Amino acid sequence: VKNETPAIPDIVVGRLPLYLRTLVQLRQAGNTLTSSQELGRMLGISPAQIRKDLSHFGGFGKQGTGYDVAFLIDQLSNLLRVDREWHVALVGAGDLGTAIIHYRGFATRGYQISLVFDNDPTKIGASIGGLVVHSTNGMQAMLRERHIHLAMLAVPAEAAQGVADRLIEGGCRAILCYAPTSLKLPAGIQVQYIDPVIHMQHMTFYLEPSDQTR
Amino acid sequence: VKNETPAIPDIVVGRLPLYLRTLVQLRQAGNTLTSSQELGRMLGISPAQIRKDLSHFGGFGKQGTGYDVAFLIDQLSNLLRVDREWHVALVGAGDLGTAIIHYRGFATRGYQISLVFDNDPTKIGASIGGLVVHSTNGMQAMLRERHIHLAMLAVPAEAAQGVADRLIEGGCRAILCYAPTSLKLPAGIQVQYIDPVIHMQHMTFYLEPSDQTR
Repeated sequence: VKNETPAIPDIVVGRLPLYLRTLVQLRQAGNTLTSSQELGRMLGISPAQIRKDLSHFGGFGKQGTGYDVAFLIDQLSNLLRVDREWHVALVGAGDLGTAIIHYRGFATRGYQISLVFDNDPTKIGASIGGLVVHSTNGMQAMLRERHIHLAMLAVPAEAAQGVADRLIEGGCRAILCYAPTSLKLPAGIQVQYIDPVIHMQHMTFYLEPSDQTR
Repeated sequence: VKNETPAIPDIVVGRLPLYLRTLVQLRQAGNTLTSSQELGRMLGISPAQIRKDLSHFGGFGKQGTGYDVAFLIDQLSNLLRVDREWHVALVGAGDLGTAIIHYRGFATRGYQISLVFDNDPTKIGASIGGLVVHSTNGMQAMLRERHIHLAMLAVPAEAAQGVADRLIEGGCRAILCYAPTSLKLPAGIQVQYIDPVIHMQHMTFYLEPSDQTR
C-alpha cells in the first residue's frame, strides 16, 4: 500500500532520515531508550521540534518513559521504505561515479547500485567495483527490463537534463542529481540534489575576511 | 567588513547559492536580463518567493524590466564571499577524498583544496592530484601556519567528531562534513552535511511498492 500519511509536510519528511540515522547510532551504542532531549542534543534540533515531527506518525513516544529505539527504527524504516532493498542505476562513470560505486554506505543502508551507464567509448565495457559499464544507448530498455526506478546522475551539468529525460522514459521515478544544475521534471518524479559548492557558499556567507587565507 | 545584513534568515541564505548558480548559467547562455518568473521556472521555486528572497538585499530588481544578470551575480558573489579564493583543507584521502580532490567544480567556483590529511601510513606522503597527503599528526599546527579556516571532512563516521575537534583547534571556522553523522561543534562554527543516503530515503518515502525492482 501507499504511505497512508498524507499530512506530513515535506520538510518533516526530510528530517526523518536524520532521526533514523541517529537512532541506528544509538542502537549500535547499546541504547534501548532515548528521548527528544537526547535526539535534540545529537542532532542540533530542538526537543519540541522532534516531538512535533514524530507526532505526525502517532503514538511513538510515551510521556515520561521516552522513545523505544528499536520500535522507532522499525517505524521510520517502514515509512522511509528502507526496510527493503532498492536497486539503483548510476549514470556517469567518471571520478565521481567511481567514488559512488566504491562508497559502501549506499548498499549497507539499502541502496544497491545495480546498473552503470556512460557514453564514453573508453569506459563502456570496463568493470568498476564489479559492475560493467554499459553504453547509454539502450539505457531506457535496460532500465525497463531490470525494473529499476531509482537513479543517480553523475554527469556534467550540460548533459544532466538530457540524461534525466531518458531516465524517466526508462521508467525512473526518483533521481539523485550530483550535476550542479536544476532539472525540469514532470510532476510526480522525485528529485534531490547534491552540490557541495552550494553548501560551501552557504557557510562562507557567515565568515569574515579575517577567516580568509592570507 | 562583516556582512551587514543581519536580518537574512538562514533558509534564505541557503537559497542564494542556487540563485547564483542559475544566474551564471543564464550569463553563459548569453542572457543579460532575467525575471523572477524565469528564475522560478529554472529552479522550481515560486516567483513570489524569489522576489521576496532577493528583496532582503534591496534594490536588485526593477518592476517591469526585471533583473540585470551581471549585477545580480556581482551582488550575490559579494554576499556569499565567492568574489575571492578560499583555501580549503581536506581530511580523508580515501575513495571519497580522492574524488573530491579530482572534482574540478570546487576550484572553478572559488574553493581551492590546498592541504590534504590522512592518518593511514600507506597514504601519507603520496601525491593525489598534485597534492601531498600529510599526516593528521601536526594537522592543527599546519592549518594555523597556512591560515586555513575551511575544511572538508571525508573520514568514517566514527572518526568524524575527533577530527572535527582538532580542525577547530587548528582554527577552522567552517566544516563541510561528508561523514554520515552529526557533529557537536561550538557556537559560531559553521557546518554543512552531505549524506546522499539521507536524500535517497527522502525520495523513497514517496515511492510505491510497484516502483521497487521485482
